[in-house]
Amino acid sequence: MAVTVVGSVAFDSLETPFGKRDRVLGGAATHFSLAASFFTDVYVVGVVGDDFGDEELTVFAARSVNVDDLERVPGARSFHWSGRYEDDMTVAHTLDTQLNVFADFDPELSPQAASASVLFLANIQPDLQRRVRRQCREATIVGLDSMNYWIGSARESLIETMREVDVVTLNDAELRMLTGEPNLARAARKLRDLGPRVALVKQGPYGACMFTEDGFFSIPAYPLETVIDPTGAGDSFAGGCFGYLDSLGDPDPPDDAFRAAAVYGSVLASFVVEDFGSERLQRLEEDEISARFAEFKRMMTFGEPARA
Amino acid sequence: MAVTVVGSVAFDSLETPFGKRDRVLGGAATHFSLAASFFTDVYVVGVVGDDFGDEELTVFAARSVNVDDLERVPGARSFHWSGRYEDDMTVAHTLDTQLNVFADFDPELSPQAASASVLFLANIQPDLQRRVRRQCREATIVGLDSMNYWIGSARESLIETMREVDVVTLNDAELRMLTGEPNLARAARKLRDLGPRVALVKQGPYGACMFTEDGFFSIPAYPLETVIDPTGAGDSFAGGCFGYLDSLGDPDPPDDAFRAAAVYGSVLASFVVEDFGSERLQRLEEDEISARFAEFKRMMTFGEPARA
Repeated sequence: MAVTVVGSVAFDSLETPFGKRDRVLGGAATHFSLAASFFTDVYVVGVVGDDFGDEELTVFAARSVNVDDLERVPGARSFHWSGRYEDDMTVAHTLDTQLNVFADFDPELSPQAASASVLFLANIQPDLQRRVRRQCREATIVGLDSMNYWIGSARESLIETMREVDVVTLNDAELRMLTGEPNLARAARKLRDLGPRVALVKQGPYGACMFTEDGFFSIPAYPLETVIDPTGAGDSFAGGCFGYLDSLGDPDPPDDAFRAAAVYGSVLASFVVEDFGSERLQRLEEDEISARFAEFKRMMTFGEPARA
Repeated sequence: MAVTVVGSVAFDSLETPFGKRDRVLGGAATHFSLAASFFTDVYVVGVVGDDFGDEELTVFAARSVNVDDLERVPGARSFHWSGRYEDDMTVAHTLDTQLNVFADFDPELSPQAASASVLFLANIQPDLQRRVRRQCREATIVGLDSMNYWIGSARESLIETMREVDVVTLNDAELRMLTGEPNLARAARKLRDLGPRVALVKQGPYGACMFTEDGFFSIPAYPLETVIDPTGAGDSFAGGCFGYLDSLGDPDPPDDAFRAAAVYGSVLASFVVEDFGSERLQRLEEDEISARFAEFKRMMTFGEPARA
């Protein structure tokens, strides 16, 4: 069993109310793969420049993430995103985006990466997502993320790609934009009518929720008193979710599996925001994950007390 | 056992994407008392004009709500609010507010109403809330709601009143405004530091959450595909919550009781928005409440499936 993720591996320059960091290791595929690595084997498919060095590779190696499909282009520079968060920490303001090597990204997967049982198409151009999806013929669970930019500029291609996946993860604003439907339950139904059996809706500081044939499931955000840097929360959420799903070894997981997966995703997301970039995931321990999973259970459990 | 609620009893003129209604029965104390009436005896303390007639009184009578403390001022008109909701249904745009009789509201409670075991101070001027609170010497659980207007214009009085209650219900924007703290967990801690043991935070379309000494609890909103009119959701939430709490007959309820109460509150809120004004609560049946309570449980429950 293994998860393959395709997406950005990047440097991020970040400003939050808690400080600034220049060129920390980031990108959707980075956060995803580090989070997923706590549950299963991970292949990361991406492209970097020769500014990407041993220091960065060591981060992946420390979590046993396979980087054979991480292409390194000589004489070129890696994708670099600069962003700022204001006090409420919910909206990322992009200061600068330099695609660099990412502009011509069009991967041919190695046989190993192409034979993964679970595939996650992180937020990249939808044609590219579809080409990768078609290379992974053995994948039994395929997830897809996207963003407002592609919904606006490549809508038809995105919808065509969504028809070939099982799970779509979007945030609630993106889901409303995609479906033109302000009501979340209706929007999720419209999305599922396109093909995906699971709509996994990220709600930022409110947590996440999931719509499946069996019904609705909601997970709160972990009530952290200090969020240092929200970057990577959505990708770590997906990483925890799909990593856990793969670890079950079930090609057709029941609703319960998707629920537990969404909680593990929320657990990983709750850790990544505790520090800049992927620093928290780099020092995360497995027993911290189990402890926080149990805390999520406690945050969501209720019964009726005895009457006096 | 009984709950006393003090607050507005009003006529509302409403515009939502689903239609218009002129002068329907509304007001915080109305929605609260109808919701609470499914769980316990309710005394409603308020004031109306002589435009308030048998038709309106019948609504309270049908749910056995005691209206002996609902003062009727001859030759005057009832509080009248006009508002509009746009497509996303989360923000009420006030078109007109006519306080009328409500401007001089300063109730002396009957001995019956003053001896209730649970008291809810709906959103009115904080000095007035405090005067009512001090009349109810036997109340063992006191809740308070407020709004941005009082946080801005009567902040010190509001804080003084909060020191004398057990539970504060605010929405998340109000809580941030009150505490000056963008992070929800910190804001809730600051609120609880003022005195209330429970911070019950309403999050509109995201549901609600609760902070107590024992920890954090989160309840999703029921995923309705059609919300006809959000007016009264917060007050019905409080009504279900405090009505249920009173029904337990426990002067010092454990954390579990507050959790179940918050779920019952969410159940009542999920019904009221299914129709204009209080129309849905007027035809609500007890078995619908239990069925939806069970659905909330299902929406929040997860376990780990067996591994293959």
